[in-house]
Amino acid sequence: MEVKKIFLPESELPRQWYNIQADMPTPLEPPLHPGTGQPAGPDDLAPIFPMPLIEQEVSQERWIDIPEEILEKYLIWRPTPLYRAYNLEKYLDTPAKIYFKNEGVSPAGSHKPNTAIAQAYYNKISGTKKICTETGAGQWGSALAFCCSLFGLECKVYMVKISFQQKPYRRMMMETWGANCVASPSNETKAGQSILAKNPDSPGSLGIAISEAVEAAVASEENKYSLGSVLNHVMLHQTVNGLECQKQLAIAGDYPDVVIGCAGGGSNFAGNCLPFVRDKIHGKDIDIIGVEPASCPTMTRGPFAYDFGDTVQMTPLLAMHTLGHSFVPEPIHAGGLRYHGMAPIISQLVMDNLIRPVAIQQMETFQAGITFARTEGFISAPETNHAVAITIREALKAKEEGKEKVILMNWSGHGLVDMAAYEAFLHGKLADHELEEEAIQQALEEIAPLPKPRQYTG
Amino acid sequence: MEVKKIFLPESELPRQWYNIQADMPTPLEPPLHPGTGQPAGPDDLAPIFPMPLIEQEVSQERWIDIPEEILEKYLIWRPTPLYRAYNLEKYLDTPAKIYFKNEGVSPAGSHKPNTAIAQAYYNKISGTKKICTETGAGQWGSALAFCCSLFGLECKVYMVKISFQQKPYRRMMMETWGANCVASPSNETKAGQSILAKNPDSPGSLGIAISEAVEAAVASEENKYSLGSVLNHVMLHQTVNGLECQKQLAIAGDYPDVVIGCAGGGSNFAGNCLPFVRDKIHGKDIDIIGVEPASCPTMTRGPFAYDFGDTVQMTPLLAMHTLGHSFVPEPIHAGGLRYHGMAPIISQLVMDNLIRPVAIQQMETFQAGITFARTEGFISAPETNHAVAITIREALKAKEEGKEKVILMNWSGHGLVDMAAYEAFLHGKLADHELEEEAIQQALEEIAPLPKPRQYTG
Repeated sequence: MEVKKIFLPESELPRQWYNIQADMPTPLEPPLHPGTGQPAGPDDLAPIFPMPLIEQEVSQERWIDIPEEILEKYLIWRPTPLYRAYNLEKYLDTPAKIYFKNEGVSPAGSHKPNTAIAQAYYNKISGTKKICTETGAGQWGSALAFCCSLFGLECKVYMVKISFQQKPYRRMMMETWGANCVASPSNETKAGQSILAKNPDSPGSLGIAISEAVEAAVASEENKYSLGSVLNHVMLHQTVNGLECQKQLAIAGDYPDVVIGCAGGGSNFAGNCLPFVRDKIHGKDIDIIGVEPASCPTMTRGPFAYDFGDTVQMTPLLAMHTLGHSFVPEPIHAGGLRYHGMAPIISQLVMDNLIRPVAIQQMETFQAGITFARTEGFISAPETNHAVAITIREALKAKEEGKEKVILMNWSGHGLVDMAAYEAFLHGKLADHELEEEAIQQALEEIAPLPKPRQYTG
Repeated sequence: MEVKKIFLPESELPRQWYNIQADMPTPLEPPLHPGTGQPAGPDDLAPIFPMPLIEQEVSQERWIDIPEEILEKYLIWRPTPLYRAYNLEKYLDTPAKIYFKNEGVSPAGSHKPNTAIAQAYYNKISGTKKICTETGAGQWGSALAFCCSLFGLECKVYMVKISFQQKPYRRMMMETWGANCVASPSNETKAGQSILAKNPDSPGSLGIAISEAVEAAVASEENKYSLGSVLNHVMLHQTVNGLECQKQLAIAGDYPDVVIGCAGGGSNFAGNCLPFVRDKIHGKDIDIIGVEPASCPTMTRGPFAYDFGDTVQMTPLLAMHTLGHSFVPEPIHAGGLRYHGMAPIISQLVMDNLIRPVAIQQMETFQAGITFARTEGFISAPETNHAVAITIREALKAKEEGKEKVILMNWSGHGLVDMAAYEAFLHGKLADHELEEEAIQQALEEIAPLPKPRQYTG
């Protein structure tokens, strides 16, 4: 029998995260203070983040030690297995070798705990009592709830109302881990109240929920805010995934020609691909593909510009690919990919042609998910299916070209708490969404007057 | 850092299943034909099972080779990790070492695919086109759906109606893997029709669903029936779990004083404990505990007698602990443990005092599940929480006694598709069920007139 799963021994768990800021050809633009438009310093961020995370946010050190207490908690599910997808390869009759990294083995079922553990830990040692956050599809909220329970921290989650209603299991998971979860917009914050005053039936959005969580965090010195994606320190923590992958592929005696991941805020994608981007900077020939939904085409259609991370403009301005902070994407089932912006690190790497973005419609992604489930067994999260679909496309391209390419797919999580999406697909209730050009243009108009806009030239 | 997860390399995956029939101090009583009351031979079973499984059902060989094609599919999730529950130990402040075997890493989320893969394979090579089965909580149906998809077999699942309504995600999983799932009682079989004629609002039961699946199987020569528990060949396939555990504990340098698993039909429990029962037969001092719900106390309150496996009396009569084939337990959330009978192998081992049965109320099990989730991270299936609760009791007993006991718990599956149960518990909507003695007595009366009744003397 051929080896199916490449396991790393626990002793090989990476001891450091990789900080790509040390290697980026174009340095990151600084975040700007939302009031003054001037570069925001550590002091500006101190009300919402603990200092160790702020230091990581701006660090230029290439390698950052992972504290022993975090390593110990990582062992609950890490190192995660790297799979060879023999059954899928056979089904596609492709000469490509397909590997997938299974991040679905964490208790929360996705990659999100990689940073949630770290954030909970640094908050704990900094004296935080309660962490406030938002969640879209619920992956992040449940991951943070899980990790706060391990460190004995309170956790408050503002969950986008439409997901709160559609995905009760995610809320129940958070409650099982001891967190408090409310639908956003809520009546608990001024941000929520102002949205509800205008539209009592607002389905909510990630931008609104961020506003609420930030407001709740600054309300008390014992509270802090936590973000599950976008920021540099989040990308940093996620690199434990790609670093493991590199060791595992070395064990298998392979190196990827293509690296594929889905990208919403960018952390899942970054976590797997950044160590390979480093290799690419140093001359390796790799096609690194970030997959986004056609209904929220941040990287492929949004300009690179300064924009707010949230709807009511409370966060610092970030230099990133964005569709405008008021853009509300169609309610596709891959809720974790419905964000108007993209991580500054990923955005800059797209600008520098180190990452190739691709947008895809949801019907193809679900069809790919069905194929994957019936060959490799695992049911993917709808977000993950974006990576699965492009993996299948690349494997079929390799077949056309007759090339034995090595494809690495980042399988970010399972879909067992998202079965309603499969139900809708299997019963003909899903469709692709034609993007309304008008809606994008309208949202983009809000970006133009901002400081330092820069058009996409990639 | 201490090792948290003991992995077996794939090359160490057991190549044979262990058949305890070769070592049992008291041989099994033969199954009886439901019409004649005479011992049922292979020919009697041929209409519903393929011959290789019938041969395994009656085999006295100690070791049975696992075919290469099954081993290859096992690698999708096996060997499964054996965990050391350091966080739970610390929380309980116990000197006990707690190990748990994580069977939740399979695509279906439980131990069930261990036998589903084998049954799908043997049906495939025997020419079966469609497998019919029943499912209670949905674990078995989804496992068989998954495994049929890997071998290109059709799969038809009769799902107990109350679960069909309460656990739509399980049905959606089956459909994602390509199976057809209907609520039982259905109008598709005579058995279902007769139940519906008496009670159109019948919530269904495992016994009724078995009747439907057997009827559908015998309707065509191309169809076969499949059972996810109770029978000898199912116990056999599950032993891959316990055999792995023995190798993993040897790596850890430990041997269990206590082995704990939850028992519904008995296959999950058997899979983990039978290799240890063998050691006990050969003189090892181990406390092997089968945990059942107080609302369906088959082993602790049911006599050892011949009884039908299903409600409408179509299956062979099995010598087992039973509450009577018409017993309908309270609708507790651990649906997989709501079965009136217990596997003949487990029943006989209880009679021979090799296994110690314990019954427990559901409130304690959910409290244990919360404790486990907040220490070890993973959210257990409600069935699994029965094992978690007794593990906690045993660890606290070890603390009282000041003994460094080694406890092995079989963590049979995750609860991510059962979150409604946690919701009910956390929001005060669950209660313990006082068993109505009358209901048991009434059900037991049906057993008495059967051939060869034998009272429990253990």
